[in-house]
Amino acid sequence: MKVLLEGSFDDDERAQWLAALSAAMPEAQWLDSAAARDATADVRSTIQAAVVANPAPGSLQGLPALQLIQSLWAGVDQLLADPTLPTGVPIARMVDPAMNAAMAETVLWAVLSLHRGMFVYARRQREGVWQVHTQRRADEVRVLVLGNGQMGRTASACIAQQGYSISSWRRDGSDLDLLLPQADIVVNLLPLTEHTRGLLNQQFFAALPPKASIVNLARGAHVVDADLLDALDSGHLRHAVLDVFHTEPLPTDHRYWQHPRVTLLPHAAAGTDARSAAAVAVANLRALRDGAELRHLVDPGRGY
Amino acid sequence: MKVLLEGSFDDDERAQWLAALSAAMPEAQWLDSAAARDATADVRSTIQAAVVANPAPGSLQGLPALQLIQSLWAGVDQLLADPTLPTGVPIARMVDPAMNAAMAETVLWAVLSLHRGMFVYARRQREGVWQVHTQRRADEVRVLVLGNGQMGRTASACIAQQGYSISSWRRDGSDLDLLLPQADIVVNLLPLTEHTRGLLNQQFFAALPPKASIVNLARGAHVVDADLLDALDSGHLRHAVLDVFHTEPLPTDHRYWQHPRVTLLPHAAAGTDARSAAAVAVANLRALRDGAELRHLVDPGRGY
Repeated sequence: MKVLLEGSFDDDERAQWLAALSAAMPEAQWLDSAAARDATADVRSTIQAAVVANPAPGSLQGLPALQLIQSLWAGVDQLLADPTLPTGVPIARMVDPAMNAAMAETVLWAVLSLHRGMFVYARRQREGVWQVHTQRRADEVRVLVLGNGQMGRTASACIAQQGYSISSWRRDGSDLDLLLPQADIVVNLLPLTEHTRGLLNQQFFAALPPKASIVNLARGAHVVDADLLDALDSGHLRHAVLDVFHTEPLPTDHRYWQHPRVTLLPHAAAGTDARSAAAVAVANLRALRDGAELRHLVDPGRGY
Repeated sequence: MKVLLEGSFDDDERAQWLAALSAAMPEAQWLDSAAARDATADVRSTIQAAVVANPAPGSLQGLPALQLIQSLWAGVDQLLADPTLPTGVPIARMVDPAMNAAMAETVLWAVLSLHRGMFVYARRQREGVWQVHTQRRADEVRVLVLGNGQMGRTASACIAQQGYSISSWRRDGSDLDLLLPQADIVVNLLPLTEHTRGLLNQQFFAALPPKASIVNLARGAHVVDADLLDALDSGHLRHAVLDVFHTEPLPTDHRYWQHPRVTLLPHAAAGTDARSAAAVAVANLRALRDGAELRHLVDPGRGY
């Protein structure tokens, strides 16, 4: 079986992925972008699967035998937005236990930090101020998790275990308007689709109780930045922890960088772990080879 | 039963404690410091118990009927150091489930922050630098917990549940020299005694692997500050999270305040929660009244 590895990697990353994937499936013939480009049409016409991470537009064209596009990333919104994507080829998302665990860690860290006022203490340290604030119990802090997929469920279980009061929402589920007024912290782990783009807007923030906080670990386009900045500046929102942005890297002149109520991560909440993700990708490649059921398939109509 | 409430409270704290304690034990007669000072010798001679939080030296003298000193704080090193403390009166520590939970939260927050490099990301945000660092799995991070009492055990269970590789040490247990070279993060939850004072010194830090981190949530006097600063400045230690200090509040000119490798909390890792601690204190007062066994008694020879 010939497999194409195609993505916006730097040299180290490409080498790391090729090593992990070929160790997991040594019986396959692995071609990276350069090898595929240099290959004859005969070779290209026998590539059966592509393992991708943000592939360059057009890079999956001219592969007549392609039967599976396996993403190394959990979010496939950018992949699906590529108009040159071959139609009719099944697309699988990455569901990597190590990535889910990393995301749950970041959620837990953000919730603990907000609950215990750690971002306030960090500012006070820089200002040289020694001042203790009131300590609430975890069960007095209401956390609303948006998204009920693998990541949402793993994260919810992790923070519930720590004693927080959890509610969760998915788009086809309960009424968001009833949940927002009861949320002290909102954690966004939704997929980005036409239905969820811009969901965190002025109306959303206004429905939250005063001094609520936002944790966005999904996609920058879920948030209307101007509305979030207004809600932070007015003091209605206490704090925002943001890992993802409309443009990444976040432009250097963006107000988020220096905003006292914003904690910013460089899209680092949960990386794919090559060691475990390679095994997940290879399991699907072997299923393809053996005619078994493919897992984690994307519904292009639904968008995830 | 007459009970004295004695401590270095501000007015709000005193009112909050009196309300919580008298709600938990309305059948007792509660006297605060002022009431006890104004009371006749007859009244003072019938005070059977004192509930204390950092009482002023001498304030527990002249109480001939005193049969129990119940601390509202977990650490009793300062109380035991008071030479005017009446001898032969049992002393009980506070073991408050809400305080243990709060301490475990702070431990978990510190371990997650160190593991995932969140203090580095905070510095990069201030510097406007977008740069992702390598993500390790929790089981690749070795955490050594010093102290195996209620707090140490609660915190260890909490971080073990999160997947970290845990070892723990108590003074009469295994050989610390064998554990230190295997620790990426050391969390100190020891009681302060003559045996543990200054334990975290040059020799201790040198035994750790390069780039280890320290989390001190116990007492400032466990640490030799000059040695810790040397180990941070040389780069041998990666970071220190410090909640407690030799002098509190930490003097404004102390190097810890602005040190880039120090995260400082104002002795806020775990406060006693008046709601649950009042119930714990009152359970011991009722045991005294009923001749039942007193709990959480301090061994003055051992120091905790």
